[in-house]
Amino acid sequence: MSFADHWLLPDGMDEVLPPQARQIESLRRKLLDHFHSWGYELVLPPKVEFLESLLTGAGHDLDLQTFKVTDQLSGRMMGVSADVTPQVARMDAHSMRMEGVARFCYSTEVVRTRPDNLLGSRSPIQLGAELFGHAGADSDLEILCLMTESLLAAGAKNLCLDLGHVSIYRSLLAEAGLNEPQQEKLFDILQHKRLGELDQLLGGIKSPAAQLLQRLAHLNGGIEVLDQADQELATAPEVVKEALAELRELATALTDLYPEVDLYLDLSELRGYHYHTGLVFAAYVPHLGQALAKGGRYDEIGGVFGRARPATGFSTDLKVLAALQQPQAATGLIAAPVECQRDPQGRQLLKELRSSGKRIVMALQGSELPAEASAQIEYHQGRWQVKAG
Amino acid sequence: MSFADHWLLPDGMDEVLPPQARQIESLRRKLLDHFHSWGYELVLPPKVEFLESLLTGAGHDLDLQTFKVTDQLSGRMMGVSADVTPQVARMDAHSMRMEGVARFCYSTEVVRTRPDNLLGSRSPIQLGAELFGHAGADSDLEILCLMTESLLAAGAKNLCLDLGHVSIYRSLLAEAGLNEPQQEKLFDILQHKRLGELDQLLGGIKSPAAQLLQRLAHLNGGIEVLDQADQELATAPEVVKEALAELRELATALTDLYPEVDLYLDLSELRGYHYHTGLVFAAYVPHLGQALAKGGRYDEIGGVFGRARPATGFSTDLKVLAALQQPQAATGLIAAPVECQRDPQGRQLLKELRSSGKRIVMALQGSELPAEASAQIEYHQGRWQVKAG
Repeated sequence: MSFADHWLLPDGMDEVLPPQARQIESLRRKLLDHFHSWGYELVLPPKVEFLESLLTGAGHDLDLQTFKVTDQLSGRMMGVSADVTPQVARMDAHSMRMEGVARFCYSTEVVRTRPDNLLGSRSPIQLGAELFGHAGADSDLEILCLMTESLLAAGAKNLCLDLGHVSIYRSLLAEAGLNEPQQEKLFDILQHKRLGELDQLLGGIKSPAAQLLQRLAHLNGGIEVLDQADQELATAPEVVKEALAELRELATALTDLYPEVDLYLDLSELRGYHYHTGLVFAAYVPHLGQALAKGGRYDEIGGVFGRARPATGFSTDLKVLAALQQPQAATGLIAAPVECQRDPQGRQLLKELRSSGKRIVMALQGSELPAEASAQIEYHQGRWQVKAG
Repeated sequence: MSFADHWLLPDGMDEVLPPQARQIESLRRKLLDHFHSWGYELVLPPKVEFLESLLTGAGHDLDLQTFKVTDQLSGRMMGVSADVTPQVARMDAHSMRMEGVARFCYSTEVVRTRPDNLLGSRSPIQLGAELFGHAGADSDLEILCLMTESLLAAGAKNLCLDLGHVSIYRSLLAEAGLNEPQQEKLFDILQHKRLGELDQLLGGIKSPAAQLLQRLAHLNGGIEVLDQADQELATAPEVVKEALAELRELATALTDLYPEVDLYLDLSELRGYHYHTGLVFAAYVPHLGQALAKGGRYDEIGGVFGRARPATGFSTDLKVLAALQQPQAATGLIAAPVECQRDPQGRQLLKELRSSGKRIVMALQGSELPAEASAQIEYHQGRWQVKAG
């Protein structure tokens, strides 16, 4: 085997080198502190769990994305975490068992068998927040605010929030009288926005709900789409109207709170349809070929752990987010001869400089002074001191 | 399947709940900042790599500890990182390719097929520092200082450093004339300190080196062991004398720098023998059944990546280290009604309080005020303000 083979990394399994790693670390701290100030408690989910808990309620996509390994201690199958959200739901339902509202946050590297999208990362640092135990628009709004402020704090410019609500599609579908293949076809059409095929599929179905589904596909745009929806879906079931009312409440509040952020409503948005149960959302910035952050409500996930709780949350990839930032200027290094630390006064000086945020690098015997050192420590007039240049 | 099955975690694959997770995060920041102030650059190694790069130069133990998965994109075998050190060596040799001395640090969760020891964690958070490109005692001392100060900063009490040097054993073994089974037996005896069997194995071998090996096993204790070693190993090869001189230099410097830390020298210490090439060390505290941190010199590891560089480093498990600390008092929560954030003055108040390190939790509609809130925000005399209790 040639040297080159040892060097290659698998596609999408990235390493992060200096100075980018430090930049990611700074952003990680800033955002976790932000979550902390909103009352979110940090948790560290396990990297590897039994497959049943890892994939519970999470659907087929996550199964395909999860690396499987055998537990040599128990002989059971385990999975390497590919998405932290179901793990945090398990921790809420089982490990914490708090009454009332619970708020958790996390920042942890996950790995996936295949990339999420064409940009190709299989090793995002998933950073996010989850709120359990509250079912109303208040908690959806809190998560939306937390996400928006996190992205703005990370330096996102021209942010656009995309809002949808899977209850609308789900409740119309339940009444539309489509058979299974028709349902799959419809889902596929809406997911890929091939609206030209919609008429052919739904045109022949005479149920009122099928007609409403056809209109749904065109209901997207600014907040004015909600007025249009109120008219066009006036005959829809109550659940649809409640969903529209929640979207209106959230869109109004967001416009008020973040006038600099664009809103886009898409009533046939089906991202995470098999997983989400209400509001779904994603945040975009121009020229980035994927969502910067995404999330939504997933009220049923805790049930399989014996404790169904309403839940809403969002997550982002810290690696992608950090790339939005301006590169940070490196902190200047101060070079110090090793003799300096063998002297009590020199040692004290090193300690004070380091505590005050300075970076001191030792000039090891026989090695050259680091080229990037902007100052050095010298013995002068009976004591160790910093000399510039 | 019953609910209980979903709850179980695999043995040694831990989750960390609040408030311990926050405590680990604080310690992580403190130690990474400490490394930063010594000129160490943060890197994030990949969680998953091709097996060849992951296991290169690392020996059989790491192979057994590494979970293997198939890369669905290339069909090749990959491993989930079980030890960051060889990854950082690859990054130094290939990704960075710096001239002269390079310093890197990391903090990353690894997973292992089997526990390292009886305490049973298979998911340590490996935090450590590595220094490349310098072969002398200066760099070993720097790493020892960095480790010692990190452990003291983390709250380790009654710290004891255990120093050894695998060159001594290796060079005597090369001259002792033992056959393969005898070598394995000797290694086993020394590893498990079954010194009673030593005489039987080496007594019949007449080479001078075999006699020296026999003495080696008894050379352990305080710094005075080095005087004894100078006498008893006076006829040993030059390499042994150089190793003893380095141990003396390091032990003297450490005694001088950290008088509160105990030193223990063990000339037959073989931890990491197949991997290390010079100094080996470990740090212990009383009543903890495993080393708190460990490390040593491993000069040849970069060679297989086309660039052999001298290297020395240490690592610790952040989870174990954080458990030494006193529990932190929780920061008090301030409860705020959701209406507060719909008002510009209220919003400003929330922002200021959060920026100043306060934790504000929203009292969501229909849910109870969090029991742990020590103050709340109220509308009083025309403005939102904090009211204690």
